Amino acid sequence: MKHGIRQLFIPGPTNVPDRVRRAMNVTMEDQRAPDLPELTLGLFRDLKRAFGNKSGRVFMFPSSGTGAWESAIQNTLAPGDRVLMSRFGQFSHLWVEMAERLGLNVELVDVEWGMGVPLDVYEEKIAADTAHEIRAVFVTHNETATGVTSSIPGVRKLLDAHSHPALLFVDGVSSIASIDFRQDEWGVDLAVAGSQKGFMLPAGLSFLSVSEKALAANRDNRPKMARSYFTFADQIATNDQGYFPYTPPTQFFHGLRAALDMLFEEGLDNVFARHHRLAEGVRRGVQGLGLKLVAAGPQWHSDTVSAVYVPEGVDANLVLKIAYERYNTSFGGGLARLNGKVFRIGHLGDLNEVMCLSALACAEISLADAGARITPGAGVAAAHAYFREAHSASQAERQAAE
Amino acid sequence: MKHGIRQLFIPGPTNVPDRVRRAMNVTMEDQRAPDLPELTLGLFRDLKRAFGNKSGRVFMFPSSGTGAWESAIQNTLAPGDRVLMSRFGQFSHLWVEMAERLGLNVELVDVEWGMGVPLDVYEEKIAADTAHEIRAVFVTHNETATGVTSSIPGVRKLLDAHSHPALLFVDGVSSIASIDFRQDEWGVDLAVAGSQKGFMLPAGLSFLSVSEKALAANRDNRPKMARSYFTFADQIATNDQGYFPYTPPTQFFHGLRAALDMLFEEGLDNVFARHHRLAEGVRRGVQGLGLKLVAAGPQWHSDTVSAVYVPEGVDANLVLKIAYERYNTSFGGGLARLNGKVFRIGHLGDLNEVMCLSALACAEISLADAGARITPGAGVAAAHAYFREAHSASQAERQAAE
Amino acid sequence: MKHGIRQLFIPGPTNVPDRVRRAMNVTMEDQRAPDLPELTLGLFRDLKRAFGNKSGRVFMFPSSGTGAWESAIQNTLAPGDRVLMSRFGQFSHLWVEMAERLGLNVELVDVEWGMGVPLDVYEEKIAADTAHEIRAVFVTHNETATGVTSSIPGVRKLLDAHSHPALLFVDGVSSIASIDFRQDEWGVDLAVAGSQKGFMLPAGLSFLSVSEKALAANRDNRPKMARSYFTFADQIATNDQGYFPYTPPTQFFHGLRAALDMLFEEGLDNVFARHHRLAEGVRRGVQGLGLKLVAAGPQWHSDTVSAVYVPEGVDANLVLKIAYERYNTSFGGGLARLNGKVFRIGHLGDLNEVMCLSALACAEISLADAGARITPGAGVAAAHAYFREAHSASQAERQAAE
Amino acid sequence: MKHGIRQLFIPGPTNVPDRVRRAMNVTMEDQRAPDLPELTLGLFRDLKRAFGNKSGRVFMFPSSGTGAWESAIQNTLAPGDRVLMSRFGQFSHLWVEMAERLGLNVELVDVEWGMGVPLDVYEEKIAADTAHEIRAVFVTHNETATGVTSSIPGVRKLLDAHSHPALLFVDGVSSIASIDFRQDEWGVDLAVAGSQKGFMLPAGLSFLSVSEKALAANRDNRPKMARSYFTFADQIATNDQGYFPYTPPTQFFHGLRAALDMLFEEGLDNVFARHHRLAEGVRRGVQGLGLKLVAAGPQWHSDTVSAVYVPEGVDANLVLKIAYERYNTSFGGGLARLNGKVFRIGHLGDLNEVMCLSALACAEISLADAGARITPGAGVAAAHAYFREAHSASQAERQAAE
Repeated sequence: MKHGIRQLFIPGPTNVPDRVRRAMNVTMEDQRAPDLPELTLGLFRDLKRAFGNKSGRVFMFPSSGTGAWESAIQNTLAPGDRVLMSRFGQFSHLWVEMAERLGLNVELVDVEWGMGVPLDVYEEKIAADTAHEIRAVFVTHNETATGVTSSIPGVRKLLDAHSHPALLFVDGVSSIASIDFRQDEWGVDLAVAGSQKGFMLPAGLSFLSVSEKALAANRDNRPKMARSYFTFADQIATNDQGYFPYTPPTQFFHGLRAALDMLFEEGLDNVFARHHRLAEGVRRGVQGLGLKLVAAGPQWHSDTVSAVYVPEGVDANLVLKIAYERYNTSFGGGLARLNGKVFRIGHLGDLNEVMCLSALACAEISLADAGARITPGAGVAAAHAYFREAHSASQAERQAAE
Repeated sequence: MKHGIRQLFIPGPTNVPDRVRRAMNVTMEDQRAPDLPELTLGLFRDLKRAFGNKSGRVFMFPSSGTGAWESAIQNTLAPGDRVLMSRFGQFSHLWVEMAERLGLNVELVDVEWGMGVPLDVYEEKIAADTAHEIRAVFVTHNETATGVTSSIPGVRKLLDAHSHPALLFVDGVSSIASIDFRQDEWGVDLAVAGSQKGFMLPAGLSFLSVSEKALAANRDNRPKMARSYFTFADQIATNDQGYFPYTPPTQFFHGLRAALDMLFEEGLDNVFARHHRLAEGVRRGVQGLGLKLVAAGPQWHSDTVSAVYVPEGVDANLVLKIAYERYNTSFGGGLARLNGKVFRIGHLGDLNEVMCLSALACAEISLADAGARITPGAGVAAAHAYFREAHSASQAERQAAE
Repeated sequence: MKHGIRQLFIPGPTNVPDRVRRAMNVTMEDQRAPDLPELTLGLFRDLKRAFGNKSGRVFMFPSSGTGAWESAIQNTLAPGDRVLMSRFGQFSHLWVEMAERLGLNVELVDVEWGMGVPLDVYEEKIAADTAHEIRAVFVTHNETATGVTSSIPGVRKLLDAHSHPALLFVDGVSSIASIDFRQDEWGVDLAVAGSQKGFMLPAGLSFLSVSEKALAANRDNRPKMARSYFTFADQIATNDQGYFPYTPPTQFFHGLRAALDMLFEEGLDNVFARHHRLAEGVRRGVQGLGLKLVAAGPQWHSDTVSAVYVPEGVDANLVLKIAYERYNTSFGGGLARLNGKVFRIGHLGDLNEVMCLSALACAEISLADAGARITPGAGVAAAHAYFREAHSASQAERQAAE
Repeated sequence: MKHGIRQLFIPGPTNVPDRVRRAMNVTMEDQRAPDLPELTLGLFRDLKRAFGNKSGRVFMFPSSGTGAWESAIQNTLAPGDRVLMSRFGQFSHLWVEMAERLGLNVELVDVEWGMGVPLDVYEEKIAADTAHEIRAVFVTHNETATGVTSSIPGVRKLLDAHSHPALLFVDGVSSIASIDFRQDEWGVDLAVAGSQKGFMLPAGLSFLSVSEKALAANRDNRPKMARSYFTFADQIATNDQGYFPYTPPTQFFHGLRAALDMLFEEGLDNVFARHHRLAEGVRRGVQGLGLKLVAAGPQWHSDTVSAVYVPEGVDANLVLKIAYERYNTSFGGGLARLNGKVFRIGHLGDLNEVMCLSALACAEISLADAGARITPGAGVAAAHAYFREAHSASQAERQAAE
């Protein structure tokens, strides 16, 4: 029998803040009520702000983030279209799989897991495509399976350098609202996010933020994929009045209102800075325990999730099992080829220093229970030192600014 | 400023019982937790029971019911396939529209709004199709826009009479778990339902209950539609272990557990009987006020929603507006061609006699405020009489049984 | 098995608005936290506003309203003190009983149930008490058992007329925040209220609003009663810093914040007007059914609860039982000598017209089921007519004002 | 702006488990409903089980625990009665203060803070009281201010040794349902508890568990104190039917049902063992940091709260402030003479190992920030080692048992 708070250190669903939970606990309401737009129009407006999308629009689908992946593809591309994708983890893998199922002609770049989007190879391919046959370039901003963040501005830069008109698709499910993201500035055309990560909501709502260019691509005369549930047109026809083409999950809207308020009250830049600080604390803790990240170098470090190799001879799944059953704590497991070798610490959403320390403390004890030779307390101590140092630095900065 | 309980008499979302609301108000959990199947496998099992589906399976998609419509089509049919559909309200209309968007070759039977599936015309078409080119027959069990229920056994009978192998698709969004439905007995192959009606949950989860024959059609060698989010295969590969191909909205599962428990504790037959009794009370009330239903005759009466014509010269939208703004009560509006002429009283889900009386009382006062000449109290009195009569009858029955 | 919304038409606990319920559903917090006063000091300030108490203070006790009755007595009076009280229902009876238990020398005026505080008798006694031996005069503002409201200004006037220094105690449990109440203007010294009536919270918190004169009486040199839990001094010593002498139920504070916000957003005058309008509608409905109130005349009509005599030969308790078991609706029962003869309709708190209509509809059907010969719909129709008339009048007023 | 879970390590209110919170989030209900006893009678029965009280009864008061202290005294003693009390912390101090306010003649034994009930002095006094003038002996089972647990069986033994008939009063507010307590076996006559500690509920409900002997003392002919709100008689007259003398906070009853279910599902012995294990882990952590407990020796160690001296030169209040403001964590402060020198870690209620590790981790970082020279990670490491050791021992035990 389990006691106490269930600790959740998976890279989503994240902890839903009590304020959001309370906001969502509403009675049902009429999805055609005359005053519903007072709520929904503000959400559309503020979602755009959260994505850094001024000119385009954001769609909300009752679906997981996977649904928004599909919507992005179906509404702007046609079967047979050539697209450039890279694969370096389970989620980039699944997106490739979806693209192929939907009939796209995928130019696939396989990358060692632990690294991210290969800008050099992408550049080669883009440079070579003088006929502009590549209609879209796909980027997994944050590969949740390996804890690797890729550079979107890097991709934008190479597209611009070659004046390549491809649409830029970004999977931001585990990055947006946690890691810096600037849709307009980075020229992202279709950005996918889900409710259950940085947006601090339960799973069940997906967001697709589209640029004006993507909307134009949707409207143009080229044939597109057959589609209905995820079609842009029905949303466009109703969203501006504050309504939806089919019954929306209005309870989510109340939660989203609270979540957006929290993000803006903190300030997006502060949200990103907090995620960086907490992530760096976790990484120091991992290092303090003598463990290695899957991310192959600091340039790939993810500020939302750390995938950690367990020591040789230790079964990562046993670590997970012990943490869950003995300590009421969930870490993420190693996916696909990383299974058994890796556990993942999610550190995104509504999180603070003490929660990260407790993640490390629990990782320590679970690893030890699973037979790993680690120095108990060493992870906590290292994170501890970093948090104090970061705090002093931020104090100093603040004073300097005054 | 509004006061008191917000009364919801729309045909979905329905009132979420407090027990279900409480059950859903959970902290987030790991969708890959080892003990999640203890919850989810029971849900799959009990959903099958709720649909009367012994041999097939039920899928749960994070989507509105519209998504399950799409899944049913994409996984068993191919573009160009011929299907038989009928249209007699906004929701049967939307299903036709989807079928056409997805490339089906729709044999469409248009029926006067107020009536349902035309068994005679269906029979003609089926009889004529000796080549079995019609691959699927679609039935909107309960047309929510008009308050019309159609006979599924009637359709099954004519298919059987002609030994026609077409798949039978049923939209049961506003009927299943409220009105009698027996998937196996009636030979339904794909039955669509949503969380926010008879299942008494918020919107956001859809159910697709498929027969073994539908699963075989999915597996066979004929090409199907391109699909990914709503594909059966990914669900089949994970559901039997109690998991899902993408992040599921686990909060819904806890609510669904409570809702299914409530349905079975009451007994499905009693649930259906209660819906009939309450619906009949509302219909008597409507009659008592001298108003007419859209449903063209008792054989079409829906036990989940009544669409009511306002008297000549009265604006139905004004009635809705008054009910909403002055009396904190939502009725359904008239959709498409019925707009301005009709208001709808939803009477499904977690409902009782007093709630129906209050719906009638509110309809009376809102109609009067909107200029209708009705006899105040006449609706309540008529429903009142029926409820007392029904109660006596059931008492007598019970005594006779003892 | 019961279905649908549980209708609550008792004179408290009242329906807790969803907004308040959500606000109360908080995690626990440190009752000595440095920022708790940000919440609590605002509550003290706004409670004073709700009572119309500018110079004194309001205490909050974790207790039912009965506890605040006790606190009022213990902190300002001594055993043997002579007090003037009147009794005309179960709650004024219980207050007398408490006064006697605590050793007061009660000058008791018994009044026929259905009437309230007898101003003439009170005046006689006050006039006769030239030695000012009567230290306190007690008034039950609203007798919940009979639905009778008494005049506080009337009592104040007679005290002033005779320059009598007695403290004025008021039981406002079922009146304050629902019916007009003005502590300073009416010279009330100790006003008792509870959380579960007009303040729209669950039971468990009581309010005692005391004048400067009462505080002086508490501080003076006369001996008082032995007391500890309900002592003023400990509250005074901590409340001004925003804290409490023992662990306070902080969840209530969040609910109270929301409830006070709702009251002030509506405006107290509008709250009182709404209670009057709804109460009058219920009374018209009662009259429409040919039933009689316990309140002996309009001057005694309570705007928060109506006690209704059932017709001769009908058992009021059977009406209650039927309403509860068959229709999931709670009415108040007849207390003490009214038991079996009376049922009570509570119409206070977060309530609207449709809820009152449904109370009447349910009363009608329950009465009929219990054998009463009433005209079904007649109650609803009468209330209906009044609500429409009241609405027109208020519209006309508003237009005239523009 | 604060983020993440608010960590609560105060000795009450404790963390309300989500299951309890959900159970309490109910709509209001009729406190005179015919089926309320189905809930309440079970609560009375199971509370007796939680107290180990077979023959007597448990009262529930809408009040804080302080109210139950008062009830215990008022109902069994008279002003002037001689009682034996000891004082060794803020809460035993407050109980003495109450006894004096209520007019008892307190024979007070002052003890150095850090120790508990002085059995030797008590024995002396009891032995000397051959006239049996001491009517009651008071014991603070767990002094929350110092983290000191006293021996109730020790007191019982000395009373028995001298055949002394005094009533035995126990303050079990921060012990009962967390630490071993056996009312009948230990001959406790009046045991006080509150909702917000081991019972894992919000504050606002108190429990007073009384023996048959205490009930007899209440019924006997000796005069008692004036009382009304907290009188036994009114409760006795209504509780056995499942009702209450004044409006009870029914929402608490639903929460209590869930909390009792959780306690019994775990098993009271396991609850006590878990509290011991977690407490010992915290103590090892404190030791690992080189800090000292207020408790003067292992015989006084409290399994629900540890009061910890900060190092010389460090301000304990600064540690608290940093923990609260910088790390969103509440520890208990040093009360009265311990203010500024001590912080307290509450470790009772719904708690697990990882929560205790995070308490230590947060204490470490807050102490360091406040200028203490401690070895970061040393506390966590020591607790860590103990938890692993305890786990191995319990595994070994289990295997031996098989």
